[in-house]
Amino acid sequence: MTSSFEARIGALRKLVSSVGAEVLLVSHQPNWFYLTGFSGESGMLLVEDGKSTLISDGRFTTQAREEAPSVRYVEQKGSLTRAVSDFLNQRRYKRVAYDPNHLSVTQFDSLRKAVGGGVKWISAPGLVESLRMRKEAAELTVMRKAAKLADQVINHAIALLKPGVTENEIAAEIEHQMRRGGASGPAFQSIVAFGQRAALPHARPTAKRLKKNELVVLDLGVILAHYCSDITRTVYTGRAPSRVRDWYAAVQRAQSEAIGAVRLGASCGEVDAAARQTLTRFKLEKFFTHSTGHGLGLEVHEDPRVAREQTARLESGFVVTIEPGVYIPGVGGIRIEDDVAVHSDKTEVLTRASRDLIEL
Amino acid sequence: MTSSFEARIGALRKLVSSVGAEVLLVSHQPNWFYLTGFSGESGMLLVEDGKSTLISDGRFTTQAREEAPSVRYVEQKGSLTRAVSDFLNQRRYKRVAYDPNHLSVTQFDSLRKAVGGGVKWISAPGLVESLRMRKEAAELTVMRKAAKLADQVINHAIALLKPGVTENEIAAEIEHQMRRGGASGPAFQSIVAFGQRAALPHARPTAKRLKKNELVVLDLGVILAHYCSDITRTVYTGRAPSRVRDWYAAVQRAQSEAIGAVRLGASCGEVDAAARQTLTRFKLEKFFTHSTGHGLGLEVHEDPRVAREQTARLESGFVVTIEPGVYIPGVGGIRIEDDVAVHSDKTEVLTRASRDLIEL
Repeated sequence: MTSSFEARIGALRKLVSSVGAEVLLVSHQPNWFYLTGFSGESGMLLVEDGKSTLISDGRFTTQAREEAPSVRYVEQKGSLTRAVSDFLNQRRYKRVAYDPNHLSVTQFDSLRKAVGGGVKWISAPGLVESLRMRKEAAELTVMRKAAKLADQVINHAIALLKPGVTENEIAAEIEHQMRRGGASGPAFQSIVAFGQRAALPHARPTAKRLKKNELVVLDLGVILAHYCSDITRTVYTGRAPSRVRDWYAAVQRAQSEAIGAVRLGASCGEVDAAARQTLTRFKLEKFFTHSTGHGLGLEVHEDPRVAREQTARLESGFVVTIEPGVYIPGVGGIRIEDDVAVHSDKTEVLTRASRDLIEL
Repeated sequence: MTSSFEARIGALRKLVSSVGAEVLLVSHQPNWFYLTGFSGESGMLLVEDGKSTLISDGRFTTQAREEAPSVRYVEQKGSLTRAVSDFLNQRRYKRVAYDPNHLSVTQFDSLRKAVGGGVKWISAPGLVESLRMRKEAAELTVMRKAAKLADQVINHAIALLKPGVTENEIAAEIEHQMRRGGASGPAFQSIVAFGQRAALPHARPTAKRLKKNELVVLDLGVILAHYCSDITRTVYTGRAPSRVRDWYAAVQRAQSEAIGAVRLGASCGEVDAAARQTLTRFKLEKFFTHSTGHGLGLEVHEDPRVAREQTARLESGFVVTIEPGVYIPGVGGIRIEDDVAVHSDKTEVLTRASRDLIEL
């Protein structure tokens, strides 16, 4: 992987130069992991013209040296901002780029104070994220496996949906199966929502027991070798009444229209509109209370956003979720979500569990 | 719980007035949960003189109305910062407090731009955290249960340590037992470190198999009814050689000295020093590469920090971890961690699993 880290840092260095900076502060964990392989939770990476420098604390020193041999390592003695500003002062850097999305006001103020005058601070949001959007072949290989494991886990969970089981029990079983499948854990707190709770797009599992004739929304994802997957399926515990079938058909249609709109060069706003217009045709748009999807990779929510009026265009190697849904307060919700990779010549749906309405 | 939310917001309002502000922006999830019961991941709470206002997006509207009936709810249409600044403008607030630890530079800049001139922005770090440090009786009741579940889970995990088992398998079993015990999940990625990997204080589980005559560090915590626990135990798979016994005895002594130093009015720096000086006596201080502990509650790391030179003084209701350790590169590590509550008349150790060296 060292060569791929070097290529990534090389590409990033060009972006750093293009904003007129000598050095970039990388202050977000998934970003420094992407650039160096260091998986520790605290630190900062300084992308310099020669070798880059990783600064972290004593808890991570051995780990950083093992995981990130391609960069210089400096162990901080006092606070992180103090160690970073000492390093910047020592190198006499005058043009320092930072990502305002990943520095708190406190961190930025203390850095500026400690570095002193004469330094130009260059706001450079999203430079690393712009590289991370384009997944390399090796990253896609891992993401296919993460998607496949999500398929297996969700099918396993669906098979456990019997009257009387609780949301918490299903969630426990889901996360156990992820681990057994080699995941380091869930990509987010799994959503297991029965009945009316399925009308909450982000419901957390509770002690609620499953009954007959309810909607069930399952939304889960794994972290496998650091990469995330994300899948949602909706089940009816019984023979679905016709209004539920109608809603389901509308969401399924909206999802397939949006997946159809995923192609090289399409804007994210167009993909979102494909789902939204379909639901409008079915007069369900007011129940679709969130955006159509999001980028997926080292983080479960990353760039690009697949939402209204987003002008970012899809490129080869992008992976996004497509997850329209409708939420009827007091009744329940329906959401169908898959992970989709963009290639120059085709669209690849990574998650493959059946998308049809499952009636138990 | 509504009455306790009102009491908390009442106490906070006095702090907001004392910094000269009319309104406080609460931009950190555990903080707004503590003040309102809203468990959603996105939003902002505005603590005003009358009723407070929660702003979030359509995904969370139903949930916010159910979980947080004591506050006014506003659903954002565009971005969160836009909705917040519109609200501030509409109310004509002129003195707005914010927490610089919980606003990114991007968020703060866009708020300031959208709110326009004539508003005084008052930096007010840690107001809610200062309340959260003093746990109420009902919070301590939950934290005792979270600690007890951690005890059970770690004892279960220790019983599974047989040659050939992998770190990943133990981690999977740990998280399954947490769920079975009623936890909503782990408080952090469980640490299961065999042999040399135990020398990494934050090792993530791998496919490494357990051998005879190795150190094993297990560090885990649960989230139970939103509150965290955190425990570490160290095991030797065989009869420990004398140097391992010596190290273990030193860490155990350092931990008991630090627990002994936890009392009403003691400074956090004194508690840290009690552990550090003990390890110095055993000539092991250079292998103790982190601080002695941290506050525990809704977050697994919260105020106060139990570290060198910290002047914050322990008050009744504070809960901190005490977790000295030594890490010998190439050999392994030893850490013992418990959760300790401060009362006016006594110190209560919440975690109770045996602290003696376990030889398997």
